[in-house]
Amino acid sequence: MTPFERRTRRAQARLVDAGADALALTPGRNLYYLSGVDTEPSDRLTLLVVPAEGDPTFVVPALDAASVRDATWVTDVRTWADETGPSPALDPLLDDLSPSHVLLADRMWTAVSLSLRDRLPEATVGLASEVLAPLRRLKDDRELDALRTAAEAADATMRDVRALGTGAVGRTEADLAAFVEDRLEAHGGTGIAFDTIVAAGPNGADPHHASGDREIRPGDPVVLDFGTRVDAYPSDQTRTVVFDGDPPAAFEAVHRVVAEAQAAGVAAAGPGVTTGAVDRAVRDVIEDAGYGDRFVHRTGHGVGLDVHEDPDIVAGGDVELEPGMVFSVEPGVYLHDRFGVRIEDLVVVTADGTERLNRTDRGWRL
Amino acid sequence: MTPFERRTRRAQARLVDAGADALALTPGRNLYYLSGVDTEPSDRLTLLVVPAEGDPTFVVPALDAASVRDATWVTDVRTWADETGPSPALDPLLDDLSPSHVLLADRMWTAVSLSLRDRLPEATVGLASEVLAPLRRLKDDRELDALRTAAEAADATMRDVRALGTGAVGRTEADLAAFVEDRLEAHGGTGIAFDTIVAAGPNGADPHHASGDREIRPGDPVVLDFGTRVDAYPSDQTRTVVFDGDPPAAFEAVHRVVAEAQAAGVAAAGPGVTTGAVDRAVRDVIEDAGYGDRFVHRTGHGVGLDVHEDPDIVAGGDVELEPGMVFSVEPGVYLHDRFGVRIEDLVVVTADGTERLNRTDRGWRL
Repeated sequence: MTPFERRTRRAQARLVDAGADALALTPGRNLYYLSGVDTEPSDRLTLLVVPAEGDPTFVVPALDAASVRDATWVTDVRTWADETGPSPALDPLLDDLSPSHVLLADRMWTAVSLSLRDRLPEATVGLASEVLAPLRRLKDDRELDALRTAAEAADATMRDVRALGTGAVGRTEADLAAFVEDRLEAHGGTGIAFDTIVAAGPNGADPHHASGDREIRPGDPVVLDFGTRVDAYPSDQTRTVVFDGDPPAAFEAVHRVVAEAQAAGVAAAGPGVTTGAVDRAVRDVIEDAGYGDRFVHRTGHGVGLDVHEDPDIVAGGDVELEPGMVFSVEPGVYLHDRFGVRIEDLVVVTADGTERLNRTDRGWRL
Repeated sequence: MTPFERRTRRAQARLVDAGADALALTPGRNLYYLSGVDTEPSDRLTLLVVPAEGDPTFVVPALDAASVRDATWVTDVRTWADETGPSPALDPLLDDLSPSHVLLADRMWTAVSLSLRDRLPEATVGLASEVLAPLRRLKDDRELDALRTAAEAADATMRDVRALGTGAVGRTEADLAAFVEDRLEAHGGTGIAFDTIVAAGPNGADPHHASGDREIRPGDPVVLDFGTRVDAYPSDQTRTVVFDGDPPAAFEAVHRVVAEAQAAGVAAAGPGVTTGAVDRAVRDVIEDAGYGDRFVHRTGHGVGLDVHEDPDIVAGGDVELEPGMVFSVEPGVYLHDRFGVRIEDLVVVTADGTERLNRTDRGWRL
């Protein structure tokens, strides 16, 4: 049995518990997680229907049938052609199923979910994450291997960034982002997992700054937040460094606080600890140093096929950590018009604590 | 007034006609089209609410407020923080609006649309495309300029591909795809508009082949279908060429049929002509040549901010073409286990016919 089929069988058991007759998934991470088919949503309907009992069925555009059959263990693949649209393939399937409660992919386009609700006027709907998120947040060994290898590519890239030394001064943020993306590929990554952030000087005070034309100057703190994918699983790591010269007043102290907060979060995490307790451990360090109101985002987020997934590491979070969960610990302090500091690693919960996936130097000096 | 505001005012007039009180848009092409904000959907809610009368409102994560304000003419930007979630910003807005019928972004995640429906139990919902697709399918001069420039980048890239000559033999499909993507950027494009297709020999018989490890051999027909973006607008173009040696039996005749069909489609198009008539003109040539059952997809699709948008150029299509519509004409013939041929250009409907946006050589010889 492939890991994809094994996950599907587990999901089916949970469907029964959830009182749902079926999952209906369009292309996206949930569909990949169960079927192995890794495609983008399109204006041509691709739908995987997983009943609570029995075997799943794919409805796919005829154009994509060959590549879907190559990628999946699912044997019932029904096709539709542009002349007719999906109805001849879809309607009999839905008629046979006649679900009273169906769970839809969370990221299914609303145009598709409205159309399904029109076709199933008697059915109530919920979200697929109700049954899939609890499965997806516990990573199996294959998933952990991919996440570790992706983290190693990010670590190696960060070492290459440091090796630029004072040569980084005068390059633009966008140029440095292109360097990062090139090195991620060179170290075995595929593409970028999210828009690469290189934020120099005061731009670092915007946690979601888009890398732009600003040139890196001596004394600029530079926030670098980037990720790639290995076997579909992402990395996500942040460092804040100074390539040359003396950083602004207060920078060194702020960097120390953020590094301590990050270490406190990693140390606090472990099986049975709540996500809110991890957030508290991080926030305490920053609040004690007087920067509580400058830490303007959650402490972290789960990471898996989606860069942001369960569990959120957020104030008041009540999810109890379990071995196999993977999440970021990424405190930041942002001083408007001056600079920002953020340090982020991914960690996996183990039987007795955590394992850091990112191990490269967290200091600001090269 | 910016073009984005002008479009919003037009959309509001159509909302009134459609009996809707508001549009609710999450990040995507429709949100960009009205606001100028070009971001990806995220697990943190960004929502643009456009009432039928009055000014629109953004609800955005506090983290993204600065970049949203920089990008848009919309002045009412309300923020929410991770500690509270979006409710404190969103709920008063929805309460004030109390819509009875609201149009949701077609590609809004179902998790978001279900949540909005829970918050608005009295409201009926429809799709934003009802009012926005008719606007978006008529391109203004700025949009046409971007589409023309993107098409020129694709044409120049195809010339670079031909210039490889016999040097392309021995390279893998994936390697040639990387070359294409590099040249698209060199000619002023930004990224890729869709997965680059390089399909050699029998792989060309799969219209949606994923570029892989197959090496290009002498005599291989190679289908190249690629696109980039300029100022957010894409190119989309296909050529089928032979880099060296003699192509398989029947290839030359099939290529001639596809080229004739493509020319017939472009010639048939013009204001007042239906999309179905364009499809018919193309299909007639291919059916007369005996390959009707090997032309397994629609003749084309509208192109704008989305690579696939209104109008579909499909059998039976009843949309009447109007000046300013842009679409692909891309017949193909696919002979299983042997080869495929597809030729694709974008055209814009003019006052008295069409203008081809792609002008580079359509022949199979280098």
